[in-house]
Amino acid sequence: MDFSIHAEDGRARTGKMSLLNGTVTTPVFMPVGTLGSVKSLTPHDLEALDAEIILGNTYHLFLRPGMEVIDLAGGLHKFISWKKPILTDSGGFQVFSLAKLVKLTDAGVIFQSHIDGKKFQLTPELAVDIQERFGSDIHMVLDECTGYPVTHAVAAKSMRLSMTWAARCRRAKKNPSLQQFGIVQGGMFEDLRRESIGALTDIGFDGYAIGGLSVGEPKEDMLAMIDVCTEKLPAKKPRYLMGVGTPLDIIEGVNLGLDMFDCVMPTRNARNGALFTSTGKINIKNALHQRDFTPLDASCLCYTCQNYSKAYLRHLYIAKELTYYRLLTIHNLAFYLNFMREIRAAISEKTFGSLLMKSRELWG
Amino acid sequence: MDFSIHAEDGRARTGKMSLLNGTVTTPVFMPVGTLGSVKSLTPHDLEALDAEIILGNTYHLFLRPGMEVIDLAGGLHKFISWKKPILTDSGGFQVFSLAKLVKLTDAGVIFQSHIDGKKFQLTPELAVDIQERFGSDIHMVLDECTGYPVTHAVAAKSMRLSMTWAARCRRAKKNPSLQQFGIVQGGMFEDLRRESIGALTDIGFDGYAIGGLSVGEPKEDMLAMIDVCTEKLPAKKPRYLMGVGTPLDIIEGVNLGLDMFDCVMPTRNARNGALFTSTGKINIKNALHQRDFTPLDASCLCYTCQNYSKAYLRHLYIAKELTYYRLLTIHNLAFYLNFMREIRAAISEKTFGSLLMKSRELWG
Repeated sequence: MDFSIHAEDGRARTGKMSLLNGTVTTPVFMPVGTLGSVKSLTPHDLEALDAEIILGNTYHLFLRPGMEVIDLAGGLHKFISWKKPILTDSGGFQVFSLAKLVKLTDAGVIFQSHIDGKKFQLTPELAVDIQERFGSDIHMVLDECTGYPVTHAVAAKSMRLSMTWAARCRRAKKNPSLQQFGIVQGGMFEDLRRESIGALTDIGFDGYAIGGLSVGEPKEDMLAMIDVCTEKLPAKKPRYLMGVGTPLDIIEGVNLGLDMFDCVMPTRNARNGALFTSTGKINIKNALHQRDFTPLDASCLCYTCQNYSKAYLRHLYIAKELTYYRLLTIHNLAFYLNFMREIRAAISEKTFGSLLMKSRELWG
Repeated sequence: MDFSIHAEDGRARTGKMSLLNGTVTTPVFMPVGTLGSVKSLTPHDLEALDAEIILGNTYHLFLRPGMEVIDLAGGLHKFISWKKPILTDSGGFQVFSLAKLVKLTDAGVIFQSHIDGKKFQLTPELAVDIQERFGSDIHMVLDECTGYPVTHAVAAKSMRLSMTWAARCRRAKKNPSLQQFGIVQGGMFEDLRRESIGALTDIGFDGYAIGGLSVGEPKEDMLAMIDVCTEKLPAKKPRYLMGVGTPLDIIEGVNLGLDMFDCVMPTRNARNGALFTSTGKINIKNALHQRDFTPLDASCLCYTCQNYSKAYLRHLYIAKELTYYRLLTIHNLAFYLNFMREIRAAISEKTFGSLLMKSRELWG
C-alpha cells in the first residue's frame, strides 16, 4: 500500500494514501454510508463536500440488498454510483451489537438478522470474500467485539480469537489491488494491546485499526489505549481509530499519531438537530433561533450556510420537513471535513499544538 | 397583468405570464411547497428542474412559522431562498378540510389549528393581507370549499358567499405589483358556474381559477365543468385549475383551454414509491426492479435517471434510506415539468391533437 507521510508535528502527521479508486489525504474523516448512502445525501453531495472516502457496513449491505444484487451491479461503487474510495468494516461490530448472536465458535459466528430473524454464518473467510466482492478499497478483518468493562481474562481470550481470525483473513485475501487492515483489540489492558499489535504485525497488514474503544470507557482510558497502540504500531502504515468520535476525540487522536477516523456523529446529530459550528454546538430546536436570520455558522462555506438562515432551518425541523435532513447533514459533514483540513494544514505549518489548545478550549 | 398568448392549437394555448419575480411559460405545472419547501428538495433542486413557479399554502405557513417570522425575514421568497415566482392559496381549502371548523359566517371563518387546537379567524381581508405580506406573485381570494355531492341550493348559497368574499378580497388588495386571482365555484352545476364567472368578471381579476373540482366527482363531470368555465372565462387572462391532477387530467385541461395546474401528486407519489415514466407508471417496491440496473426511464434526463439504477433506488426505498425521497421526487417532478414542455411545444407546432391521443392511450 502506498502511504506517504508529508509532514509531522510532534506525533501528529499528515500524508496521502493511494487507493484503487483515488487518493486520500490524512488525517481523514470518513462519512458513514451504512446501507449504501450517507443518510439523506447523494454521492454528488459528498463530492461537493470534498469527501475523499466513505465507509460502508458489511453487515447491513450483506442483508440488504444482499450479495447477489451487489455482484450483479458490478460491485458496491457501481451500485451506489460513488467513484472514490470506500472502506468497509467486516460486519463483526453489528453482529455483536445489532443482530441476535446465536453461536460463537473458533470457526466463526452464527447470528440472526435484526430485520427478519433469518440465520446466517459469518466466518473470517466470508468477511473477506464479501468485502472483496464489494470492491472495497480498504477492508477490515473480522474480529470479536467485547463490551466494557470486561476482565483481563475475557479480553485476552477474545483478543486471541480475533488474532487467529486476523491470520485467516490475511490468508483469505485474494485481490492485490485492495487493501486489508488488521484490528488491534485487548480491551483497556496495555499488555493485551501490545500482544495484539505483535500478532498483527507478525501477520503484516496494509494498515492497522484500533478497535474496541469508545465503548463506554472514560475518555482518559481511551486516550491511554491509543497512546499505547500508536507507540507500538508501525510508523509507516496508516492507523485508523474505528467509530470515533467528537471533534475533540479526533484531534486528540491525531495528536497521538492517528490518521483515519469514522463516526456517525456528524450525520446522526444533524438528523436530531444538533449542529457543530466554529463557535461550539447549537441545537436548532432552541427557540432563540426562531427569528435568527443569520447562517448556522458565519464562517462556514457549506451550501447550507451560504443559502439558508437558522430561522428557516429551525422551521423545517419543527415542521418535520424532509428537506431539513439533507441541509443539516451537509453542514455537519462540512464542519468535520473542514476541521480535518485545518488539522492537516496545522501539521504542515507546524502549528498543530495551537490548534489542539484552541480545540480543547472550545470542545473540552 | 402581462399575459401573452403565443400560439393556439384548438382551444389549447401557450404563452407567457410576467410576474414580479420572473416569467412563467404556460401551460405550467406548479410544484407544491406546502410549508416553505417542496418536500425533500431545495430551491436549487427546483431550479435545476427548471421549475418557474412554486405554490405555497397560506394556512400552513400562517400557523408555522407564522407571520412574525415571515415578516422579519422580509417575505416568503427571502425566508425560503427561492427567487422565482410564488403562488399562494388563500388558506380556505385547508380551513375547510384539515382544520376543525368552529364557525362560518358572512364575515369569515373561525377555525382551530390542526396542530395545537388554537383558534384563529380568517377573513377575506386577512387572507389578502397575509398573502401580500408573503410577497406572493399571485395570490388567491378566500372562498368557501363545499364537498361532493351537494345540492344545487347548497352549492348556490356557498358560491354566492364566495363571490361576496371575492369582492372584498379585491377591495382589500393593496400592492399593484402582485397579481390576484378569483376562484370560480358552483359545484357540478353549469348555471352556478356561469353565474360565478359573471360575478368574478364584473369584479375583474388578474386571472381566474377553477375551484371545487377533483373533490370526488366522476372525471366526465370534472371535464364538463372545465368546459363550461373555459368557454365563458375571459380569453386574455390566465386560467388555473386548482389541485389537479394526473398527467391525463392536465392534458385534458389544456385541451379545454387551461393554463395553470398544481398538485401534490408527483411529489407525494414519489415518497410512496409510485413513479411516472414515459412508458407508464411503475412502483419501485415491485420485486422485479430488484436486479434491474437500468434507470427509471431511459428517455429521462433528470439527475436521478442519469445517475442511479432502479435496483439502487428500490434498495434505498426498502431500507427506508432518506436519500430516496429526494431522488424520486426529482424524477417525478422532472417527468411532470417535461410533460408540460412537450405540451407547450406541441401547441406551438400545432401537433397538440396527436400528443393528446398518445397521452389518452398511455394514461387512459
